[in-house]
Amino acid sequence: MSALDDNWFTEIAQGTGTAFSLRIRRKLADEQTPYQHIEIYETTDFGRLMVIDGCTMVSSRDNFIYHEMMAHPVLYTHAAPRDVLIIGGGDCGTLREVLRHPEVGTAVQVEIDERVTRLAEQFFPELCELNDDPRATLHFGDGIQWLKDAPADSLDVVIVDSTDPIGPAEGLFSHPFYVDCLRALRPGGMVVQQSESPLLHQKILVDMHTTLRGAGFGDVRTLQFPQPIYPSGWWSATVARKDEAVAGLREADAQARPFETRYYSPEIHRAAFVLPPFLQALLAAPS
Amino acid sequence: MSALDDNWFTEIAQGTGTAFSLRIRRKLADEQTPYQHIEIYETTDFGRLMVIDGCTMVSSRDNFIYHEMMAHPVLYTHAAPRDVLIIGGGDCGTLREVLRHPEVGTAVQVEIDERVTRLAEQFFPELCELNDDPRATLHFGDGIQWLKDAPADSLDVVIVDSTDPIGPAEGLFSHPFYVDCLRALRPGGMVVQQSESPLLHQKILVDMHTTLRGAGFGDVRTLQFPQPIYPSGWWSATVARKDEAVAGLREADAQARPFETRYYSPEIHRAAFVLPPFLQALLAAPS
Repeated sequence: MSALDDNWFTEIAQGTGTAFSLRIRRKLADEQTPYQHIEIYETTDFGRLMVIDGCTMVSSRDNFIYHEMMAHPVLYTHAAPRDVLIIGGGDCGTLREVLRHPEVGTAVQVEIDERVTRLAEQFFPELCELNDDPRATLHFGDGIQWLKDAPADSLDVVIVDSTDPIGPAEGLFSHPFYVDCLRALRPGGMVVQQSESPLLHQKILVDMHTTLRGAGFGDVRTLQFPQPIYPSGWWSATVARKDEAVAGLREADAQARPFETRYYSPEIHRAAFVLPPFLQALLAAPS
Repeated sequence: MSALDDNWFTEIAQGTGTAFSLRIRRKLADEQTPYQHIEIYETTDFGRLMVIDGCTMVSSRDNFIYHEMMAHPVLYTHAAPRDVLIIGGGDCGTLREVLRHPEVGTAVQVEIDERVTRLAEQFFPELCELNDDPRATLHFGDGIQWLKDAPADSLDVVIVDSTDPIGPAEGLFSHPFYVDCLRALRPGGMVVQQSESPLLHQKILVDMHTTLRGAGFGDVRTLQFPQPIYPSGWWSATVARKDEAVAGLREADAQARPFETRYYSPEIHRAAFVLPPFLQALLAAPS
């Protein structure tokens, strides 16, 4: 069996019995912040790589899929997404995709660890290119508290772009957090949250559906997309909507989008919500 | 950085700067055949794993996606798939899916290495459960030669379920092979071939489209699906059709399919053919 030498970064996902490695040229940064351990690598084939607490977060090569799919499906489903909140998302890639939408009036990003954003500005400047947009506010603090303090009926879309539901991000997958989301959202408002691998993390997916429904959301749906650097290479985001069904793609607007996308299109939007039978069965609402 | 100890099997894809590992309990078989090196492992989380020349081939846990997507999209697009040839596919998982279709009258599998099938019978018996079907013929030999000798207009579907286009499988991605395919296919006949990762192997995908068109196929289209144990976790199959467009899903038949699927459905069928903009641009036929 071949062994990986020191020229590789490996994320070992012990809980799933899998590991993924990228070949690296060198380490560009290594910081222990008050919240987590951040590393930046230069890889041989994936551009730059950000790692938090041993888990791959962002690579230059494949982040476009994740960031486009966290932003555009929900923004092209909401009829008029004016006020957007991003919780987490410190690399600013999701924020950039949100700000591409001219219909967005304000985009507030609440990232707990300012160092994630400062390192992204340094090593992933392309993800931060819209940070100076006058519609954007970068706030560094606790997203759970921020949402608790947010006025009722003040937001159209909440994007939860966090790390896995262990450690600091755990509270973002909880009943109280979703109740606060619901309160802060206007009628028809939507939350989208990264929801891990459809193959490896089925309990998390099922629990999210149950918890979002239990908090009072009117509809919950999961979409899927490839994400090569994440465990299994297959990832998901789960969308919940206040009062209404998660439906109503603004087809003409998405088709005429005034910006370039590499993964998203209205056809991909619809395709991403199509789940294979095993996932449909898993996520079927209890009757 | 964490290191992987001897309790892991790692496939290093040097050409792409990536590696994927599964935690193993023990090795169940290790054979050098005249063609290749075959290993079977018991993993902790993915059931059994077959490895050929260091590359993961099949795991108990996720092979259903690959095998269903190699068989059902093409069989539910062809109006009346009676005679099917599988080249490679020695683990018999694709053969099993083909034989689930009552409209299939003959399914010939031509695998060059009999040991792949014998080891599959021993360690993946569920994939071989239809091998005794009277419609099935297991032939061990060179698929390229078999197709060269096949009568003209004798096949409806050719499924090329091979290893990567290096080593023994290289000839399966070539102009002469596709010309032989075309000759052996009846009008409206189709070939489907595994075509690697949409992220990592774009040159192979583009070359396949060019070569299939150059051989005279009327239409060429690529479909995509997750395949967690293959490099990048994102995989593709490319479908080419004699004379006609790759279109015409038999929706009612697929909906009423008389067998269970875990990944395939007519909705997934359509979704799998939807390509993201970057792939559409890459594979657009030269005008």
